[in-house]
Formats: sequence, C-alpha cells, structure tokens
Amino acid sequence: MSGQSQTMSDGTVRLDYHIYDGEWHPVNAEVIEEGYLTIFVNGRELATLMCSPRLPLQLALGFLANEGLIQEVDEVEIAHVCAGGGCVDVWLSHPVWERPRRKIITSGCGGGLTFADLAADLPPVESNLALSPAQLGELFTRLQTRDSLYARARGVHTSALSDGKELVLVAEDVGRHNTLDRLLGECLLRGIEPAGMALLATGRISSEMVYKAAQMGCPIVASRTSPTSMSVGLAQAWNITLCGYVRRRQMNVYTHPERLAQARLVVQPGTFLVAMAETGCSQG
Amino acid sequence: MSGQSQTMSDGTVRLDYHIYDGEWHPVNAEVIEEGYLTIFVNGRELATLMCSPRLPLQLALGFLANEGLIQEVDEVEIAHVCAGGGCVDVWLSHPVWERPRRKIITSGCGGGLTFADLAADLPPVESNLALSPAQLGELFTRLQTRDSLYARARGVHTSALSDGKELVLVAEDVGRHNTLDRLLGECLLRGIEPAGMALLATGRISSEMVYKAAQMGCPIVASRTSPTSMSVGLAQAWNITLCGYVRRRQMNVYTHPERLAQARLVVQPGTFLVAMAETGCSQG
Repeated sequence: MSGQSQTMSDGTVRLDYHIYDGEWHPVNAEVIEEGYLTIFVNGRELATLMCSPRLPLQLALGFLANEGLIQEVDEVEIAHVCAGGGCVDVWLSHPVWERPRRKIITSGCGGGLTFADLAADLPPVESNLALSPAQLGELFTRLQTRDSLYARARGVHTSALSDGKELVLVAEDVGRHNTLDRLLGECLLRGIEPAGMALLATGRISSEMVYKAAQMGCPIVASRTSPTSMSVGLAQAWNITLCGYVRRRQMNVYTHPERLAQARLVVQPGTFLVAMAETGCSQG
Repeated sequence: MSGQSQTMSDGTVRLDYHIYDGEWHPVNAEVIEEGYLTIFVNGRELATLMCSPRLPLQLALGFLANEGLIQEVDEVEIAHVCAGGGCVDVWLSHPVWERPRRKIITSGCGGGLTFADLAADLPPVESNLALSPAQLGELFTRLQTRDSLYARARGVHTSALSDGKELVLVAEDVGRHNTLDRLLGECLLRGIEPAGMALLATGRISSEMVYKAAQMGCPIVASRTSPTSMSVGLAQAWNITLCGYVRRRQMNVYTHPERLAQARLVVQPGTFLVAMAETGCSQG
C-alpha cells in the first residue's frame, strides 16, 4: 500500500460560549469536532460518513473491511488521503462487486426476511476467552484517559479491543459505529488479529454493533449502557457474551454468561431464543 | 389520506438475563426493542430505517417531510401501514423527484463545498420565543415520565416540542434522529405548527439534528448532552439558540443567548463565526 499519508485533526474545536449556574460565565473551551469523510473505491464514490475528522485512513479501511469489500490490507494497492483529510481514495487489487451486506436493508416488505435469516449471515464466534466481572469492570475504568477526546470535550464514543489484560487498541469518534470501523482499520494497518478479543464500548449496542463485532470475531461485547432486543438475539445466535451497564462492580449479562469465569448461575440455553421467536424480531 | 391504520408495538421486549452486583441474580426485565421500517413512496422503496418498531406512520411521514418530499399531509393520498408495522406504503398526489437534501453527501472530494454553502441551505429562523434558564431546565424534568420507554428499559432517546410552558409533543426512539422525524410526522397528522417552538432532546446535537430543527423552524434547540462543532456553526448561522448539558439550574449556551430572557451577558455576535471559519468546518 502506498500514499497513506494522513492529515491529523485534533478532534476538538475551541469556542467562546456561556455557562449558566445561576449566573452567566463566559468560557472558552473545547467542543467536539464533527466532519465528513468521503470514501472513493476504484474511482467511484462509495460512501460519506459523518465522523470525527481525524485518522481518516483507519476509518476508511475499517469501513471497507466491515462492509466486506476487503479482508486484508494487501488488497489495497493505493490509499491516498487528500489534503485536509476529508476524503480517502482507495484503489484495490480487484474489482469491487456489488454486495449489499445488510440483507434486511433491501428485503423490504414482501421479502419476509426473518430473524433466523439475519442470524445465519455469520458463523458463531469460537473462542475460549473468559473474564471475571472484576476484570471486565477494571478494563472499563481505563477506557477514557485524561488526554482522550471524551475527557477534553465529551460528545464522543470510545471503543476498545482487549485481550482481557490490556486495552490493545482504543478508538474514539462522534459516531459509535465508526469506533468499530476504526478499530478494525487499525488492526489491518498494524497486523493485529481482532478475533478472540473482547470489544468494549461506551455506547449503546445495536444490531449493527453486534454485526461488526461478530465479523471481527469478538467473543465478548460489553457496553457501559444498554443493548437492544435485536442485539441480544444476534449475540445469542452468534455465541457472543453480551454485557450492558458495566461498572466496576456491577453489570448485566444478557447472553452466554459462561464466559464470565466467576459466574455462579444456572445457564439455560434455548430459553432466550424461544422468547425472541415469540416476540418477533422479524419485521417481514 | 386513507388506509392509515397502525400496528402498535409496545417498544420493549421482556427477557431473562442476569445482573451482577458481587453475586449473580436472574431477572426478567424489559430491554428496548429495535426494528426496521421500510418506507415505499409511489411504489418505489425509498429507505429502511433502524428504529423503535412503533407508530410507523408518524416516523414515515416525518421522514418524508424532513427529506423535503412533502410539505403538507394533503399531499399524501394513501398511507398504508402493513401488518406487523414493518413497512409503510405512501402514495403521493405528485411524482417524487430526485432531490438529494444533504448536499454534502454528494459533494465528494472535488466539490469544494464550504461551511457557508451548507449554512445557506436554509433561511435563518425568525421567532420571538424567549425562555429563562429556569423554564428550560424545568421543561427537561418532564421529558421522561414513569411510563416512558426510557423509564421502562433505557436505551432510547426522547425529544419534545415545547411552547415554553408545556411539552406539546414528545417522541421516543432508539435512533435520536428518528425522534425529530416522529415529532414532525405527529405535527403533520395533528395539524400542529412546529415553527416557533423549542426543541428539547436527550441526545447529542449533530449537524443533522440542527438541520431538522431549522427545517421545522425551531428557534431554541436544547440538549441534555453536547453539541458538535458543526451544529454550533449551523445554529449560529440559522439564528438558533443552541443549549447543551441542560440541568435544572445549569446549562451551556453556545449560540444566540439573547433568547434566554434572564441572560446577563455581553453578546458578541460575529466572534463565533470567525472562529468557525478559522477552524475550518468545511471538509471540501
């Protein structure tokens, strides 16, 4: 891969505004920056993402990998980040075929696509990774350091890949889905294998988030906040341990609690999937 | 408009899962529901939204209005919600022309679209609405009632339109942009004029959120959390008072503080726009 220079943005903007706390005080402080990244592949415009305008190469490559257009960085012959960082031009060693990843998008009304069809899209995650609740809680305390965008300006999401001991990679973005693309892009650039690592996120876990996690092969997906019904169903089907509201000594575990080593509970696989079928995740 | 029957979903799903607080406890509790809504217009599939699977008609009509495809509900001849609520078939009294609303999406790299071009897309909001910080803080305390989806399962955003005294309309959805489409859809169905009302939101304010607010003619946009740099720039240009981190007796005001009646501060219009130009919101 050649031409991979990047323009780095700081990720925040300093502004004059006012704080009210009974009285008004003028301040000059950081606000999170929002920008757009346009990705071109083989000369064609593929997508424009609303994102934090920084580290465009990681975001673009991770997006391509999560969309199924590339598997390895070797497939990228040229990746050129334009001046200002607002677009990335990617030329691949193969043509880009039309492959709508999210089947449900095009299924429409008459398609009759079911939850089972959606779940069948990827194989279950195979991994022996096991963490104690204390380990998982401890990892979350390290997510947002003093020099993070979050600490400086709020308004961003943070995600990380962890081997259970360390945070191997951390990514921040105004869009929570982008944080997962950034992690995968960084993995491709550095030759890191995401499969088998736990995925930590500050944002809510939607079906899209679980899809990206499954594609990366992450056996544990944990969030500071909540999952949706569909993300719980997909995590169950894809053999992913899904945790929500993780605090230092508290958390909810929605699926596959067997990976949390200290779990003293009776696991009843099957119960949940029946519930999903009855409540009808399918919109067909 | 005919054929507007709706299938109501409850918006949550009851699941068996486990809570850890030093020990494991099985619970059966509500998790927020995630679904998809496919919108057909004049027989063509327009879009599929990830959303809370409830009140599909409001979401579909508000989406069409915010995308500029309709101005009035009279333009809708038939709106049919399919069994299950997963899609809405809309037939308009006029053909649908291709009109990409968000210019920046198609501007790409060479387009050279600037922040000023983006801001010029809509006229500034004209309104005499003025609120005290106390009034605004008080309105936020009423956003999420005991029977709201948020109170039951978390994981959703809430937005509301207010005349300054009451919450006139409230909408909840797993997607924060959808809450604004829902508000506009409800306005169309009930014949309520959103222009001149304050828009309250629990979620972060992105450029897209400010765009929808400007299109509805809302002079005050207030959030429990943060705005992005681009939303601040657009609010300044469109004469919208933008507030963040609103609490009962605290808040930040990023633009046009003159609408907060008790404001005792020196307003320096112009300062901010210069800062935006220097930091370069344009990605062109």
